[in-house]
Amino acid sequence: MKVALLVLLSSSLAPAADTWIDQGIIYLDHSPQAVMHPVPVRAVTLGDGFWAERRKINVERSIPTMLDLLEEHGAVDNFRRLSTKKSAIRKGPLYTDSDIYKWMESVAFVLQSADNPKLRADFDRLTAEILAAQEPSGYLNTYYQDDRKALRFTEMYKSHELYCLGHLLQAAIAYYRATGDRKLLEGGIKYVDYLISISGPGKTPLLTGHPELEMALVELYRTTGERRFLDLAGYLLSGVERERLKLTSAQLVYMFSGKPFTSRTEFEGHAVRAMYASSGATDYYAETGDPLYRKTLDTLWTDLINRKMYITGGVGSRSQGEAFGEPYELPNSQAYTESCAAIGNMMWNFRMLAISGDAKYADVMERALYNGINSGMSLNGTLYCYRNPLSSNGEKIRNEWYDTTCCPPNLERILASLPGYFYATAKDAVYVHFFHNSELDWHLENGTGLKISQKTNYPWTGNVTLTVTPARESEFTLYVRVPNTGEYKAIKRRWKAGDTVDLHFDVTPKLITSNPQVAENNGKVAVQRGPLVYCMEQIDEPGAISDLVLAKPAAPFASDFQADLLGGITVLKHDGAAYVRSISEEPLYESLDKAEARKTKPAELTLIPYYTWANRERTPMEVWIPLK
Amino acid sequence: MKVALLVLLSSSLAPAADTWIDQGIIYLDHSPQAVMHPVPVRAVTLGDGFWAERRKINVERSIPTMLDLLEEHGAVDNFRRLSTKKSAIRKGPLYTDSDIYKWMESVAFVLQSADNPKLRADFDRLTAEILAAQEPSGYLNTYYQDDRKALRFTEMYKSHELYCLGHLLQAAIAYYRATGDRKLLEGGIKYVDYLISISGPGKTPLLTGHPELEMALVELYRTTGERRFLDLAGYLLSGVERERLKLTSAQLVYMFSGKPFTSRTEFEGHAVRAMYASSGATDYYAETGDPLYRKTLDTLWTDLINRKMYITGGVGSRSQGEAFGEPYELPNSQAYTESCAAIGNMMWNFRMLAISGDAKYADVMERALYNGINSGMSLNGTLYCYRNPLSSNGEKIRNEWYDTTCCPPNLERILASLPGYFYATAKDAVYVHFFHNSELDWHLENGTGLKISQKTNYPWTGNVTLTVTPARESEFTLYVRVPNTGEYKAIKRRWKAGDTVDLHFDVTPKLITSNPQVAENNGKVAVQRGPLVYCMEQIDEPGAISDLVLAKPAAPFASDFQADLLGGITVLKHDGAAYVRSISEEPLYESLDKAEARKTKPAELTLIPYYTWANRERTPMEVWIPLK
Repeated sequence: MKVALLVLLSSSLAPAADTWIDQGIIYLDHSPQAVMHPVPVRAVTLGDGFWAERRKINVERSIPTMLDLLEEHGAVDNFRRLSTKKSAIRKGPLYTDSDIYKWMESVAFVLQSADNPKLRADFDRLTAEILAAQEPSGYLNTYYQDDRKALRFTEMYKSHELYCLGHLLQAAIAYYRATGDRKLLEGGIKYVDYLISISGPGKTPLLTGHPELEMALVELYRTTGERRFLDLAGYLLSGVERERLKLTSAQLVYMFSGKPFTSRTEFEGHAVRAMYASSGATDYYAETGDPLYRKTLDTLWTDLINRKMYITGGVGSRSQGEAFGEPYELPNSQAYTESCAAIGNMMWNFRMLAISGDAKYADVMERALYNGINSGMSLNGTLYCYRNPLSSNGEKIRNEWYDTTCCPPNLERILASLPGYFYATAKDAVYVHFFHNSELDWHLENGTGLKISQKTNYPWTGNVTLTVTPARESEFTLYVRVPNTGEYKAIKRRWKAGDTVDLHFDVTPKLITSNPQVAENNGKVAVQRGPLVYCMEQIDEPGAISDLVLAKPAAPFASDFQADLLGGITVLKHDGAAYVRSISEEPLYESLDKAEARKTKPAELTLIPYYTWANRERTPMEVWIPLK
Repeated sequence: MKVALLVLLSSSLAPAADTWIDQGIIYLDHSPQAVMHPVPVRAVTLGDGFWAERRKINVERSIPTMLDLLEEHGAVDNFRRLSTKKSAIRKGPLYTDSDIYKWMESVAFVLQSADNPKLRADFDRLTAEILAAQEPSGYLNTYYQDDRKALRFTEMYKSHELYCLGHLLQAAIAYYRATGDRKLLEGGIKYVDYLISISGPGKTPLLTGHPELEMALVELYRTTGERRFLDLAGYLLSGVERERLKLTSAQLVYMFSGKPFTSRTEFEGHAVRAMYASSGATDYYAETGDPLYRKTLDTLWTDLINRKMYITGGVGSRSQGEAFGEPYELPNSQAYTESCAAIGNMMWNFRMLAISGDAKYADVMERALYNGINSGMSLNGTLYCYRNPLSSNGEKIRNEWYDTTCCPPNLERILASLPGYFYATAKDAVYVHFFHNSELDWHLENGTGLKISQKTNYPWTGNVTLTVTPARESEFTLYVRVPNTGEYKAIKRRWKAGDTVDLHFDVTPKLITSNPQVAENNGKVAVQRGPLVYCMEQIDEPGAISDLVLAKPAAPFASDFQADLLGGITVLKHDGAAYVRSISEEPLYESLDKAEARKTKPAELTLIPYYTWANRERTPMEVWIPLK
């Protein structure tokens, strides 16, 4: 990596601030354990490049069409029927409220980047309809109001009552940070205060069941400074109500909730629940510094990274229970790898990064973002993956709608909030996590204004030029993450406006192997170029994908950027071989001698980035390719 | 193979017969499509050797203790409560009646080999208790009598009503063939006639839901000559009631029942159901010769053998739905491979063999019997596997009891009936399917008495000496199956008493590969010696089993028979290697260069027959071993 410095100009001080407009995706400025502080979403403007088209389509197509679908499937009517007292039947599974809230959070993040009158009006209208359904007590859940009122708080292992509240709070906080408007936020606080009033020793025992509220409550604490919200998060994470709730062992495994978070030693059960619980626990640690939490988080992270994460950053191996498997149980075609779980993985690592400053967490974020999350939304922005397998026989994987439609608005909110993940500040320091044409307009922690411009075609090339423009000449350290290395390059100097840093990251394609304990990947390789995991799709190949093997790299991969293919991608080509007689014609079991005598002929393999798969036609796909 | 002939002596004619005492496991003497006719169980007496101790323990321990367990869990009380009108609550899942019946069928097969007054008394007592619970109409099902009477025949997709009847009939037929006693058989016929009276167009639509009754009805037809039983089987297989039953697509997949059997083109859904349905359909074909059935059976068999069967003969890849997976979806540690499904596979191939005379079916029977079935019962006879995975981290796999205890009595009946699988006759021909020290005392189809003695230590050695003793000098063909070759060696000559045939089968250990489309077996081999698939168990190995690889065979395997190990087994040793640094210490993903640079040291691997695994302590196990 070459670092070039060039002085240009300087400008004025930015204000040190503690108002809604300065709060990011999570607001860590006063968190005792945070070693860095993410910048607000609005501080970063993304320019042309890899994410530009994705984010444009997100705002113009994904988000608007999703509201239409939520209306069509009755998710908004579920609120209206409570306020209007009309007798329509409630629609959909018991957690549809959360889909609305997550969609609203997406809108709020859009508004944090730029005003959008239509979306803002939609948000305000929904806020009014939601609050009109709220009970005077503060309780608000379309499934457990009206005829199911008696069941309230009695079946929390499945009710998603607190899960929905968590998403309500996250939407409300994001909107507050976009506009300063507190209407939905006050409604959420009213519900939380109701919860606080009815719960605890001798009163109603609470359980999130599907963790989510934990991180929302810590964020509410950060937003309001009100300690009771942090304490409620601590109560939920403590597992103190385990006995009163009479939870079974299987429920405790599945829910990743209900027993002390600090008693966890491995990932198990429902992957999204586990990721959200870990995110909430990290938030809780950031405020409290409880060392048991830190120890647990470190143990869990090692379990995930060393034994249970797909190369795409996806997590959750099993369809049954949408769950983690045993260590190294990472099947490819059977992978569940829900989009929400990859998003949860990124959210959790974002928090781990903030409490540690360790680039290894940002590497995981980038892996999940570019691959296992990015695959979840079609290039046209209107089809979504629930599962993101690493091998496919061409089954239908992208759908416009799911009755459990958690993933689509989750994908929408992550894309909308993306600029907020790029930078963080610390005392006399700025961290650069991600790379994209972009402009940072923010300030050092001493209040000195700071702009950083990135010029790059990352991830297609590894060249990035940073132009650093402090408002006045200042000494600080610029921490630049070197992708896939687990480290930041620290550049400490006296910076002057217009200083540039030229970065040259290695994006030559790499052959990656799995630990031999991953049963399906023995003798196979995956191809990674920069942050992008690649795959083979049948329609690009010279023969049946199952008949192809990759030759050991005598010659390097050929990289070719094709602007008109799949939104513009770098296509890889490599020598390989194809069985002369299709292996589909071969017996299921064969002697080693005969199997080794099978004839092959040369074949050129074509690889495309994993995130673009299943965007043309339904066709078999493989990430892990047998090595000749 | 060397064939030596030696004349000794001759004796008298055996009677051609058509009575209960001459009927085998299935009775095909009058089946138009049967090209061979299995001998009765009692015609073959097994001597010392591989199966002797297993069968002894089956009679002395497995069968008696299973009755105690069935009593303890209330399966017999479920009948008593109906006849005595005492108010005890019915115990266990809705299909417990079938567990009793399957246990009784085991006893009946024991009695077909030799009298056993205690077991015969148990059978008779149970028969009385069962028939005392039967309604005057003929209906008999402990779950749907009494308080659930209104639900009868209304939820056949799950009710197992006809499944239980199927097992009742099989037990009754086996007992009739053991003793000539028809009491239970008459009770079963009464129930079937009730079914016939209430079902059909304009009346109650019937569905097996869990196929089983189909083959029982065909066997009842063979036993009684009453055409209505065959017709009822045809009705159940026809799927004619699909519309009236309002079955969903998912149910039709899962149940392998409810739509025309002849519309099936692949195995899917619940594996045991699919095997039993195919067995019943083959029985139906054997009587009717309907070519659509034959075509379907051939298509399904190819699907199973080329794409969906484990090397152990186990079938059913997925725990979810106890189901078949996609083609080549054959995970090892996640394999479901229920003991009942392997038994069903053997039962089906026994029937396919009979209608074809093709040894390939007998090869599959032997594979399932020696491996995927044989593993299901512990060497001490009192612990059973429900699942029979091909890889294990040492989880508990053998249990004395399952609330759904279908597998244990199924294993007991297959062991009890085993002699009946060894031989079949045809016009001027005798087939030898299996090898074991044994004496056949039967007759040619022209009535000439015939004895065949086998002397062998198979499968530990491949040497078998057959001594053929016709009652008088006769010309016929002796078809001797050559294991794993899909063919019978035909020896046609004029046989005289005492002629001997020396067979020398190759039992040197073979390295077997999977089709590359089996994801988990890429670059791995299984070891097979004769009919036995081998595995590595951690307790026998020089280091962590996950750190071991098998070296390509420079030197052959060392075979060593150890009489005091696991009931007496041939242990295999082979050169291999172990990672110097445990791969559990290695990262989950690693560059190919670094992975290939991992150091190994020589290690000797020890392999034991798969069927003996998990008979010492809980320890990791692998069938498929990475090849260096």
